[in-house]
Amino acid sequence: MATELKIGLAGLGTVGAGLISLLKDNAELITARSGHLITVSAVSARDRHRDRGVDLSPYAWVDDATTLSERNDVDVVVELIGGSDGPALALARKTLQAGKPFVTANKALIAHHGNELATLAHEGKTPIAFEAAVAGGIPILKALRHGLSANRIDSVSGILNGTCNYILTVMERDGLPFEQVLKAAQDMGYAEADPSFDIDGVDAAHKTAILAALAFGSRLRFESVAVEGIRSISPIDIDYALELGYRIKLLGVAKRLGNEIEQRVHPCLVPETHPLAQVSDAFNAVVVEGGHVGRTVYEGAGAGAGPTASAVVADLIDIARGDKSPAFSISPDAYEDLTPAALENHVGRYYLRLTVADRPGVVAEIGAILRDEGVSMESLIQRGNHGESGVFFVLTTHETREEAIMKTIAKLENHDLVLAPPVMLRIKAL
Amino acid sequence: MATELKIGLAGLGTVGAGLISLLKDNAELITARSGHLITVSAVSARDRHRDRGVDLSPYAWVDDATTLSERNDVDVVVELIGGSDGPALALARKTLQAGKPFVTANKALIAHHGNELATLAHEGKTPIAFEAAVAGGIPILKALRHGLSANRIDSVSGILNGTCNYILTVMERDGLPFEQVLKAAQDMGYAEADPSFDIDGVDAAHKTAILAALAFGSRLRFESVAVEGIRSISPIDIDYALELGYRIKLLGVAKRLGNEIEQRVHPCLVPETHPLAQVSDAFNAVVVEGGHVGRTVYEGAGAGAGPTASAVVADLIDIARGDKSPAFSISPDAYEDLTPAALENHVGRYYLRLTVADRPGVVAEIGAILRDEGVSMESLIQRGNHGESGVFFVLTTHETREEAIMKTIAKLENHDLVLAPPVMLRIKAL
Repeated sequence: MATELKIGLAGLGTVGAGLISLLKDNAELITARSGHLITVSAVSARDRHRDRGVDLSPYAWVDDATTLSERNDVDVVVELIGGSDGPALALARKTLQAGKPFVTANKALIAHHGNELATLAHEGKTPIAFEAAVAGGIPILKALRHGLSANRIDSVSGILNGTCNYILTVMERDGLPFEQVLKAAQDMGYAEADPSFDIDGVDAAHKTAILAALAFGSRLRFESVAVEGIRSISPIDIDYALELGYRIKLLGVAKRLGNEIEQRVHPCLVPETHPLAQVSDAFNAVVVEGGHVGRTVYEGAGAGAGPTASAVVADLIDIARGDKSPAFSISPDAYEDLTPAALENHVGRYYLRLTVADRPGVVAEIGAILRDEGVSMESLIQRGNHGESGVFFVLTTHETREEAIMKTIAKLENHDLVLAPPVMLRIKAL
Repeated sequence: MATELKIGLAGLGTVGAGLISLLKDNAELITARSGHLITVSAVSARDRHRDRGVDLSPYAWVDDATTLSERNDVDVVVELIGGSDGPALALARKTLQAGKPFVTANKALIAHHGNELATLAHEGKTPIAFEAAVAGGIPILKALRHGLSANRIDSVSGILNGTCNYILTVMERDGLPFEQVLKAAQDMGYAEADPSFDIDGVDAAHKTAILAALAFGSRLRFESVAVEGIRSISPIDIDYALELGYRIKLLGVAKRLGNEIEQRVHPCLVPETHPLAQVSDAFNAVVVEGGHVGRTVYEGAGAGAGPTASAVVADLIDIARGDKSPAFSISPDAYEDLTPAALENHVGRYYLRLTVADRPGVVAEIGAILRDEGVSMESLIQRGNHGESGVFFVLTTHETREEAIMKTIAKLENHDLVLAPPVMLRIKAL
C-alpha cells in the first residue's frame, strides 16, 4: 500500500481549484509515479462560500492559512495565495521552520525572499520547491537544477510573461496600438484589471531573478534587475522591426560576465531566426546558453490553471519520492555573490527611431553625433514625408556600450532637428 | 567535507574523454551542486595505449570492463561502451545486481533490455539512469520523469537523429541528392563510415521506444516500432514539400491511443509553422503533448562529447543527491502493457508523388482510384512535361487510414499510366 502524503492548501483561486482537479483526475497515475497517495487534507482561502467549481467538503477548512503547517494532518504545504509578503511569507516561514516541505507558485515571494527561505529549508533539512513560479508548465527550474546541473551557464533569457507576449503578438498581427490591444485583452480576461505587474515588466523581473540564481548558483538579487515594460511600444516600431528582420518581444535576460551578473527585462528586437522570435500568443520560452551542453531551448504554456497545477504536482511527486535537492541547486552556504553589472556597461546592438525635421543636412548632422560618441551605424531607413510632424529616421547600430547610446540620445534629444523623444530598443544577438 | 562518489568508467571514446574533461573542468561546481566529490577511480577500454587527449595515469586500468562493478573503489558505474549486448549488457547486469547505480549513454542497450534492467534496479534498490541515451544534452528524460510527471501524456514526437537532420537540412539548402550529401557528411566526420544505424532510422527508433515507455509509463516495446529511414528522400520531394508549406524531417513518433501504443520512425512532412520544422542541422528537438500541461517543446544539441557528457554528469549529480526515482518514472510492477497499434490503422494526412504518362485522362483515372478507396484529395500539383519519363503528379490527402493509402498505392503501382513506384510520405498534424 502506498503511504499518504497530505497537503495543506492555502489559496483557492484558479490554480488552487486546478490543483484539486488535477490530483483527482490523475490520482492513479500520480500514485504510481510518486509511490504515495497525494491527497488534500485541509484548505484555506479568504471566502469560504464562493463557488469554485470543486467540491471542498472532503477537506478541513482553516480560516487562518498560516496555521496550516501546524496541523498533524498536513505533511506538505502548498501556497497559492500570492503576494511577496503577508500570509504567504508567514506561512512559508512557519512551514519550513517546522521542517515540513513547502511548495509554491508565488514568484513575488521567491524573488523577494528566496534567499531567506532557501536558508530556512536548508536548516530545516526540508525541501522548498517553486517550479510553477517561472514559465508555468515548462519544467525550466528542474532543467536548471537537474538536467543542466553539470554546466557553467553563461546566460538565461526568455519570454516570461504571457500577457505581454500576447499583446505584442496581436499588435504585430493586427497593426493595432498598445492601449487598444490591452483593453481588448482585459475584456477577454487575458490581462488583469490592474495590468501593471505584467506590462511594466515586474512579473518578468521576478522570474528573471529566480532563473539567474538557479542558473548561476548565485545569491538571488531581484533588487538589481533593470526593468522596462511594453507601454511605449508602438505599431510603427513593430513594423520597422519586421522590415529589418526582427520581432519585438519582452525578454528577461540574465548574463554572467566574470564575477558580475547582468539582469534586465525590456522589450527587445529578436532576429526572426532566433528561437524566441517564433514564440507567439501567451506562450513562454526560455533559452539557456553556455557550458558543455551549449544552447538548449524550452517552450510551452506559461500560465493557466492546468499548466501551473502540472508544475505544482511535479514538485509534490518529487518530494514524495524523497527529493531534497537544494532550492537553487547549491547549498545556501556555497552561493557565489555576483556583483550587479552596471547597465551602462552593457554591450549590444541598438535600434533608434528618430522623428526629425525634413530638411537638408539631417543625415550629416545625426551621423556626426553618432560618430562623436563612437557609435557605428549598421543600417538606416529614411523614407516618405510625414508632413509638419517630421520624418522618421530609423537606424540600427553595430555593437556598442549602452553608455554611448545614452549619451547619443541625450544629444539628439536636445538637437533642434529632432522633433520628438527618440525611441531606443535593444537588439538581441542571434 | 564533501564525501566522494567514485566512478568506474567503461568506454573511452569521444564521450568518455569528454566526461573526464567535464568532471575536471567543472569539479568545483559539480561538488557544490551534488554535495560530493565526483571522481573517476577506474577506467576500462579496448586499447590501453591509444592517445585520447586526456591523462589516464590517475586511474586504475581494468582490462575486463565487466569487473568494474566488483571494485571497492567504484560506487557508480558509467557505461559508454555501446552496443545492445556484449560487455555493456554484462556490466549493466552485474552492477545493478551488486546494488550499485548504473549510468549509461547507450540507447541500444536500454531499447533492447530496458525492462530487464529497470527491474534489476528496482530489486537492487539502486538507480539506473540514461539521460544521455536520448537527445544528447537536452534533458528530455528528466523532463518526462520529473517536470511533466503529473500529466497523462498523449504523444511524444521528435527529431532524434542529428545525422539525418543534418543531411536533410543540407539537401534542402543546397538542392543536392541524398548520396552526395551523405558522402560529404562522412568525409567531414558527421556521419559514420557505416551510416545505416542513423539513416535507416534504427537509432531514432531506439530513442522513440525509450521516450514512449517514460511518457506513458508503459512496458518498453522497441520491437514494435515501425521504422523507415531517409535513403529514399529526393530533392524533388523536398522542393514539392516546401512549395506546399512543409519541411521533410525524420521523426520519431509515439502516441497513446486508448490502450494501444503507436510507435513509428519515418520521414515526415512537417508544417513550416510547427516547432519541429524550425530545427536545422544536427540539432534535436522533442515535442510532448497532452495532459494538463498541454504542449511543451525541448531543443538542443543531440550529440557530441560536451552535450552527452553534460547529460551523464547530470545523472551522476542526481545520484549523488540521493535520487532513486524509477527508471521509467513508475515502478516496474506498475507498468501498463499497451498493445502495439497496427500501422494500417494509423490516421493522418499523406503526400503522394506519382510519375505518370503525359496523356489525356490522367487526372480522371487517378481521381477515380482515390475515390474508390475513400481517399479525399486536399491539394494537387501537376505541371510541365518531363519528356518520355512522364510528368509528376503530386497530391496531398485529407485525413485517412493508412490501410486506404496502401491499397491506393498498390492499385496505382499496377496501373499502366503510372511509370515509376509512387513516393508516399506522411504529413505531421500541426
